[in-house]
Amino acid sequence: MGGPSARVGRDAARAAEMADLSGEELVPGRARRENSPLTSSAYPELSMRLATILTPHGPRAAAQVGNHFVDLHATDPGLPTSVKHLLAASATVRKAAAEAAASPHAVKYAADAVKILPPIPDPSKILCIGLNYRDHAIEGGKPIPTEPVVFGKFANTLVGQGDPIKIPKVSKEVDYEAELVVVIGKTGKHIPNDASAFDYVGGYTCGHDVSGRDWQFRGAEKQWIIGKTFDTFAPIGPVVVTTDELTDPHKLQIQLRLNGQTLQNSNTKEFIFGVPALLAFLSQVITLEPGDLIFTGTPPGVGIARKPPILLKAGDVVEVEIEKIGVLKNPCVAE
Amino acid sequence: MGGPSARVGRDAARAAEMADLSGEELVPGRARRENSPLTSSAYPELSMRLATILTPHGPRAAAQVGNHFVDLHATDPGLPTSVKHLLAASATVRKAAAEAAASPHAVKYAADAVKILPPIPDPSKILCIGLNYRDHAIEGGKPIPTEPVVFGKFANTLVGQGDPIKIPKVSKEVDYEAELVVVIGKTGKHIPNDASAFDYVGGYTCGHDVSGRDWQFRGAEKQWIIGKTFDTFAPIGPVVVTTDELTDPHKLQIQLRLNGQTLQNSNTKEFIFGVPALLAFLSQVITLEPGDLIFTGTPPGVGIARKPPILLKAGDVVEVEIEKIGVLKNPCVAE
Repeated sequence: MGGPSARVGRDAARAAEMADLSGEELVPGRARRENSPLTSSAYPELSMRLATILTPHGPRAAAQVGNHFVDLHATDPGLPTSVKHLLAASATVRKAAAEAAASPHAVKYAADAVKILPPIPDPSKILCIGLNYRDHAIEGGKPIPTEPVVFGKFANTLVGQGDPIKIPKVSKEVDYEAELVVVIGKTGKHIPNDASAFDYVGGYTCGHDVSGRDWQFRGAEKQWIIGKTFDTFAPIGPVVVTTDELTDPHKLQIQLRLNGQTLQNSNTKEFIFGVPALLAFLSQVITLEPGDLIFTGTPPGVGIARKPPILLKAGDVVEVEIEKIGVLKNPCVAE
Repeated sequence: MGGPSARVGRDAARAAEMADLSGEELVPGRARRENSPLTSSAYPELSMRLATILTPHGPRAAAQVGNHFVDLHATDPGLPTSVKHLLAASATVRKAAAEAAASPHAVKYAADAVKILPPIPDPSKILCIGLNYRDHAIEGGKPIPTEPVVFGKFANTLVGQGDPIKIPKVSKEVDYEAELVVVIGKTGKHIPNDASAFDYVGGYTCGHDVSGRDWQFRGAEKQWIIGKTFDTFAPIGPVVVTTDELTDPHKLQIQLRLNGQTLQNSNTKEFIFGVPALLAFLSQVITLEPGDLIFTGTPPGVGIARKPPILLKAGDVVEVEIEKIGVLKNPCVAE
């Protein structure tokens, strides 16, 4: 762990990497990442990274510290057991969480030995945005939307790092979509479309919006939800990076790899609707609450649009990598 | 309270009323119902009716007994505090709940003095079915659908008996829809489309699927969810009637009254997709879980289809009445 200047140096090196992407990987050194599924070695400068881990006492909110996860409630029983409550907590409680994470008496688990659950296993809402990348709209020859397309998923879709995506018996067109996920940290209605909207954000995580395309577009009314809410169709994680660590969600490289091959590779600077615009739009209608998840749309390169199409099948391994967050990796299995 | 033969007599009288509906009310005696918002006097033969009430100890599952609600957990601390857990409970626990409800030492609250919350305040999923009444399809000149149209709402929409429906600042076309709501009682995937599907049903309640029509149909992709999931847009209740009391959901008169005027009046015998067909269809995709709500579609007479349209506004009072369940009554207020 270096000091602040070491961090600046690494950030600069990282920015250079980003500018010179080979189209294959965000972070060179595949073998190192394979040995470190949370890519903590690739992101050592980020200290406030929250996961939900499975402990002998049940699911627990945990802070990633190097190659360990600190069970915050076990370390300081005054701290909550859920990431949702930590994101909604006051600055003083958050300070206590940071102190617990750094404590020499921290109750901790080795990252490579503990089961990582979805960071938010029980959100009240999973709201998803359709076409939201300029490069995707241009690629598809579609007009730039003037307001967000919104659909939903339910919590039956959520799985965590390493959990299988079940390819349903009844879908023949299962597709992938890498997405940045906003995790709400504060209750809000009629949130303004300006920088104050970030006050309602608790953090960010990686999301994989899996779709059964044959179900998404079928039926007279073409409501997408049924094709989007198959069990296991929303891997998220491995961690939620809080807004004090990840201050700008609009310049993050985002990539999807299928069996090691890069199929999506873009940057959230291509967003048509940024985070404040999305929160303002949604909260005209819906009171947003801590733990709510907002999938922010996917960049170009989805499987169904390829010629020939690339569809997910049992045995595949999918990785979603987002700069400053990490790699979310899930195998596909037959239902 | 009469014995079994008195009940048969009342049922017969009730069936005669149904067959001879004036188009105004399911149950004659408006004044009596006004004095008894749960219509317990109109449905004395139904004893296993579960509500969530607000007690000094927080929300509690309660059984309606005459003009009272029995706090089941307060009466027998071995019983759960939530309706969701009661619906999922074993037959033996359910027997204990019935014994608690009938106990001379029951902890009870007068029905007209206690706050009734949504019976299921925190479902994992609220799934809704589009066009599902034959008479509605015929009226609209639409073909009978060959499979259900599915959309969703989130729990921010749920309110209980007497709670206000907030007319949003940003919608100019707020419409009503009376619906029978199926409450899931048992976890299921790939549920068969036959009578065994009823094993997965915990009970039934009244639902009001409020819609912002201007939001439901706007945007390029016409995803309905945003127009359907405004805060307060899903009143449910007042009670869940369990399947041992309500054995056939396919012959229930259903009515919606706006300021006393009957605007929807049909029968669930008009369902295109019955309860087993809906559970079979949905559970191909989604694991259904105790407490999940399925809104089963609305009969003819919605406001937007009328000439001129009838839309909800502050000051309106809407009642959804479903035979053997009761009356769900909500005022409309400005946001």
